[in-house]
Amino acid sequence: MSQVRVHNMGVSLDGFATGADQTLEAPFGHAGSRLMEWFMATNTFQSMHAGGAGSHGVDEAFAGQWGPGIGAEIMGRNKFGPQRGPWEDEEWTGWWGEDPPFHTPVFVLTHHPRPTLEMEGGTTFHFIDASPQEALELAREAAGDLDVRIGGGPITVRQFLDADLVDHLHVAVVPIVLGRGERLWDGLEGMEERFEVEAVASPSGVTHLSFTRRR
Amino acid sequence: MSQVRVHNMGVSLDGFATGADQTLEAPFGHAGSRLMEWFMATNTFQSMHAGGAGSHGVDEAFAGQWGPGIGAEIMGRNKFGPQRGPWEDEEWTGWWGEDPPFHTPVFVLTHHPRPTLEMEGGTTFHFIDASPQEALELAREAAGDLDVRIGGGPITVRQFLDADLVDHLHVAVVPIVLGRGERLWDGLEGMEERFEVEAVASPSGVTHLSFTRRR
Repeated sequence: MSQVRVHNMGVSLDGFATGADQTLEAPFGHAGSRLMEWFMATNTFQSMHAGGAGSHGVDEAFAGQWGPGIGAEIMGRNKFGPQRGPWEDEEWTGWWGEDPPFHTPVFVLTHHPRPTLEMEGGTTFHFIDASPQEALELAREAAGDLDVRIGGGPITVRQFLDADLVDHLHVAVVPIVLGRGERLWDGLEGMEERFEVEAVASPSGVTHLSFTRRR
Repeated sequence: MSQVRVHNMGVSLDGFATGADQTLEAPFGHAGSRLMEWFMATNTFQSMHAGGAGSHGVDEAFAGQWGPGIGAEIMGRNKFGPQRGPWEDEEWTGWWGEDPPFHTPVFVLTHHPRPTLEMEGGTTFHFIDASPQEALELAREAAGDLDVRIGGGPITVRQFLDADLVDHLHVAVVPIVLGRGERLWDGLEGMEERFEVEAVASPSGVTHLSFTRRR
């Protein structure tokens, strides 16, 4: 069966995977870019957003696994945008411009569904009010033989981990104390027992943790 | 001036440096030995407690820095024992038997002072009701030219970090989700700005973080 994968989750030493006070200008809230600086230097990020060449070291080796083999993404509404509650308008089409980097169907979990958005480059945003299991069923259907990525944010990843639906989790532990925000690990006591875990430190200062579900 | 050092603090992915529900049989509470398994395999631990030879890899390279150059330790009362409040009796002399592994003066922070305990092998427990600054002054005096170790537990280490009294902090991030216990990083938002941080992954699965205060 196709796998369910999480990639490139930056997490602080105190367990926060995003900061507090998300706004239009600050998708990660007060964390700014601190959880993702290791990622922004990689060739994957640079060729996606900056049109240039980036690093090819261990950070890239992990970052680059984000795309290949993925047929659909599931994301939480807070990854899609800073709005909360009913949509005030439907002008907002995400942080990523006309041609988002996903190039697959993307299922956005929200209690406030809205019409499907077809973007350039093959990305289609479907807004669904669904449980993790229901969302995964839809995403699997859309992905065909390919894998499904749980794209974040932390609340969404945590829900899928809690429901034991994740086959592979990649976390980059960033050596900062964030203090506030959304904790990835809450409610997941003993989670490691379900996974093989490998740790690799990068010269950038982050540590890549790879969780692979035991069979 | 002599340095203030913290060594061998095992911390879970969710930031806990000890578990919940400490008892006489479980110094780390429900965490059991999980935060310290990497340490228990080292030559430092094995030659201290088990009379045998242990590993000499990167875990030992960090673990072994614990002793040399240290002239005094400061520890919190919860490291000394599981009792809380006024001492019911003074029979308890710590978890470590007649000849504790410290071999220096040890200042135990407690709101309930009791007479000094002279143990075998040069360890003397002094029980003091003092602020971090006051305790450090006493320990520095006792240590002479040597360094002072902040021995734990997490509440005590956190207090010394909060007061910016720590020159070197060694943390081993253990890839487990502990869920409950005492968090090391609470209240220390942005702490990393005061330190140079280096990360090294060990084949044992832990990641050693070395914080060295910027000058």
